[in-house]
Amino acid sequence: MADAERKLTDGRTRIEFETDPSRYRHWKLKVDGDIATLLMDVDEKGALFEGYELKLNSYDLGVDIELADAIERIRFEHPQVRVILLRSGKPRVFCAGANIRMLAGSTHAHKVNFCKFTNETRNGLEDASTASDLKTICVINGTAAGGGYELALAADHIMLVDDGSSAVSLPELPLLAVLPGTGGLTRVTDKRKVRRDLADVFCTTEEGVKGKRAVDWRLVDEVVPGSKLDATVTQRAKEFAARSRRPAGGKGIKLTPLKRTGTATGAEYSTLSVALADRLATITVRGPEALPPGSIEAMVEQGAQFWPLRLARELDNAILDLRVNELDTAAVIFKSSGDPEQVIAYDRFLDANRDHWLAREIRALWKRVLKRVDLTSRTLVALIEPGSCFAGTLAELVFATDRSYMLIGTREGDNKPPAALMLADVNFGAYPMSNGLSRLASRFLANPADLDRAKSERGKLLDAEAASTLGLVTFALDDIDWNDEVRVFLEERASFSPDGLTGLEANLRFGGPETMESKIFARLTAWQNWIFQRPNAVGEEGALRRYGSGQKPVYDTKRV
Amino acid sequence: MADAERKLTDGRTRIEFETDPSRYRHWKLKVDGDIATLLMDVDEKGALFEGYELKLNSYDLGVDIELADAIERIRFEHPQVRVILLRSGKPRVFCAGANIRMLAGSTHAHKVNFCKFTNETRNGLEDASTASDLKTICVINGTAAGGGYELALAADHIMLVDDGSSAVSLPELPLLAVLPGTGGLTRVTDKRKVRRDLADVFCTTEEGVKGKRAVDWRLVDEVVPGSKLDATVTQRAKEFAARSRRPAGGKGIKLTPLKRTGTATGAEYSTLSVALADRLATITVRGPEALPPGSIEAMVEQGAQFWPLRLARELDNAILDLRVNELDTAAVIFKSSGDPEQVIAYDRFLDANRDHWLAREIRALWKRVLKRVDLTSRTLVALIEPGSCFAGTLAELVFATDRSYMLIGTREGDNKPPAALMLADVNFGAYPMSNGLSRLASRFLANPADLDRAKSERGKLLDAEAASTLGLVTFALDDIDWNDEVRVFLEERASFSPDGLTGLEANLRFGGPETMESKIFARLTAWQNWIFQRPNAVGEEGALRRYGSGQKPVYDTKRV
Repeated sequence: MADAERKLTDGRTRIEFETDPSRYRHWKLKVDGDIATLLMDVDEKGALFEGYELKLNSYDLGVDIELADAIERIRFEHPQVRVILLRSGKPRVFCAGANIRMLAGSTHAHKVNFCKFTNETRNGLEDASTASDLKTICVINGTAAGGGYELALAADHIMLVDDGSSAVSLPELPLLAVLPGTGGLTRVTDKRKVRRDLADVFCTTEEGVKGKRAVDWRLVDEVVPGSKLDATVTQRAKEFAARSRRPAGGKGIKLTPLKRTGTATGAEYSTLSVALADRLATITVRGPEALPPGSIEAMVEQGAQFWPLRLARELDNAILDLRVNELDTAAVIFKSSGDPEQVIAYDRFLDANRDHWLAREIRALWKRVLKRVDLTSRTLVALIEPGSCFAGTLAELVFATDRSYMLIGTREGDNKPPAALMLADVNFGAYPMSNGLSRLASRFLANPADLDRAKSERGKLLDAEAASTLGLVTFALDDIDWNDEVRVFLEERASFSPDGLTGLEANLRFGGPETMESKIFARLTAWQNWIFQRPNAVGEEGALRRYGSGQKPVYDTKRV
Repeated sequence: MADAERKLTDGRTRIEFETDPSRYRHWKLKVDGDIATLLMDVDEKGALFEGYELKLNSYDLGVDIELADAIERIRFEHPQVRVILLRSGKPRVFCAGANIRMLAGSTHAHKVNFCKFTNETRNGLEDASTASDLKTICVINGTAAGGGYELALAADHIMLVDDGSSAVSLPELPLLAVLPGTGGLTRVTDKRKVRRDLADVFCTTEEGVKGKRAVDWRLVDEVVPGSKLDATVTQRAKEFAARSRRPAGGKGIKLTPLKRTGTATGAEYSTLSVALADRLATITVRGPEALPPGSIEAMVEQGAQFWPLRLARELDNAILDLRVNELDTAAVIFKSSGDPEQVIAYDRFLDANRDHWLAREIRALWKRVLKRVDLTSRTLVALIEPGSCFAGTLAELVFATDRSYMLIGTREGDNKPPAALMLADVNFGAYPMSNGLSRLASRFLANPADLDRAKSERGKLLDAEAASTLGLVTFALDDIDWNDEVRVFLEERASFSPDGLTGLEANLRFGGPETMESKIFARLTAWQNWIFQRPNAVGEEGALRRYGSGQKPVYDTKRV
């Protein structure tokens, strides 16, 4: 198995998740009134790693980072946009999916992280549809294979040109002995509700399905003759825009560059610090330094500097950076510092302005960032100490962790106020997990009365004993026990099998119901991870390794 | 990785799934009125494979085959039983879980098959509770570790002795770097609804949890002082028996030995044949030779010879045999021969007697056997040809397959009647899949009107064109195309990666909602399969290999 890490191109030493349209190499974003066009035109020479070229609009993580950025910018910088047209800038090919040579030469960890991020990006497109009524129409003029079709599946409406050759396909299994890794199977069965036997035929047919059959089988929404394509696309875009309730005419805000300084032992952002030591990453989130602005106009004026937005973007960046650049990190520890009342003041400000487009986008961004935390395969821990501000939105970080420790009282010689948690309306529905429930509802599956009890304590400063009695934290410890207990726990955690922990946490974090999204991350991803290790895919004679070599793969024929 | 197959003990060349109480080595079944006691008393020397001993009531597949048999016998042979007491016959230990040396020395395929069967057995215990109101009380006097606690989790009520040492635990992760493989994590979060952070503490604490804390954390239902144990168990058993609606006093039927003859190329049963050739297993199911008996008493008189029961037991045995003894088989092809009207006559007979205990048990057995088919990791195909009898219950086999082919008209020189499908009430709810839906409801997720349309055709002989129009089969082909199409499909299927197909089929077969059961088989099993391959568990320095060697495991610390 190719588990030596590849070299990044252009002398990079880390994978950077921040970009902006002026730096895009693979996408063109054009905004025209309420329609944005996202043109995929991948630069063959613009790969993230050395050793492969991005032919036929195939993609790697670098291409997807730009796509994720473009979607965020449409949401924040162009609130008047109601429809995204997703199109290819290349002739006869929409998108060939994830680059096969990239996959064949990647470490197992990179493949898994790559699929996770691309999944989150496609979920982001669907979230734009449900949370912001920003609809995506995908126009397939050519072939949409594998990840190419999976990208289309994230759209609200799929149009396929009826030219006798344009087709959609999921050829991963016949061609590469792996599964579609970006939600394809689940979206085929659960979103498009393709009949299971037809889905079986589709997913085992290399060349895919085209024309009327693609509509009959529910794989696309319509086929359009090439001669009528542009007119029909324009018409559909107008129809979708007319139905959208996204507010027209709002003036966007600029997503300015993040303030991030890498240090020898971590990173400094304007609202948080990341400290790396002993296979632990400590993220200390800082509360706001000032009260919320006096009006919604003043919030728009602050733009990307508005504290909740700044923190969400910085936290998102920090989590992504840890995921792919700090694989050795066993646990992420969340701490905070600041005034809980001020944090709550921002939550109340956003509650009061919930119908404003920017307030809605900020809340939706927090929802996605918190889901990103849930899906991060590191042990997550909250240490709730004197002077912390885990209130409202920030309390969600506590509820996202595998365990939380809260200090009782104060520390000797320390004049910070005792640790306190504070709940707000936002903890009871604003930020559903991928299973569709709030973190507190997931926590209190056994007894809804516990949820009601917590709800009745909104707005109160809850000390360690109160928080523990309400079941909001795992352990409340006094100063005498704190250091030893926390140290022993973290050392023990770091001594366990990292793989075992990934599987354990993926199961314990998401009790209760499942949604299409949770199925993608749990069921499909786990199977894909399994297959991504099997010799039939990644061994010397496996399909992924032999693809394009002219040699046929050799399979162990045992069914497991 | 230890992927050389171990040698079976006692000169066996195949794993046999049939047994009976006279042959049990590990369990004692005692029936006393409406209470059955299942005493686990594993014979250390009675392992299925060479190379390990079954110490401390640890188990291997052989132990579980006896357990599964005992549960079936209680259901059919002792209908008066309302409560099963699950207890240990050893002092100070309830059950130490799956035998670690067995796991450490097993092939990947055996580990996966072993976990699948033990999961099905535990689901069977839960099915006895819901379908037959036959309740299980688990009495833990000693330690219940790993699979031992998972067995307890399948019970309706868990009693733990409060003696300062008896404890429940899931030590798989800290001890072995794997996950509890028999539904433990999902039952902890979804059945017992343990708070996720407490579940995290529990699953990472080798020694487990005992006494009052085990109740507080919802891990057991009650703790009982040792001195009061017997009295309390008797009282609980009486309470559960009094609440059960299982009919008292019914006379059981004897589950007589199966009629199975192994041949060079397969096996012959009284109601079906298995033919093995070219990595294909063809199961031809034969319809009944006579009309159903005239009365329910006559059915009881026929007992295990009653056609639907005989077929269910034989089919179950055939599927299990293929799963573990014919790993090289790429696809299972279902064919049938007989009179569809006669098959339907049996379904109607069971419908008419649905309140009789034996009719209910037979239906519940078919439900479990069909689920076993759904969960079999082989490509499933139905070939519906002239003279076949895929009607009612047997039509479920068609709907369980990944694809079905139906012949239009008759074959030259063949006087069998044209292929026909026939639906009955039983196809619309009697046999839910593990996702909680009937196979037809799963099939027609996109449009419930398709389900209604199929329902309105109950009782009609549907020829290939009608079945195809209704969406009941994948392809309707005439005699000219049949041979080539089917041959090419089967050859192609056998050319694909067996691992890829396992993952693909596991995703496409279960669209729509999830239940605790489907989560166990999809989410948890897939993660476990992944971990069962990771070097941190099964590598030379992995925890599973090094367990008990005195050497600590060495882990790759990268989080994936």
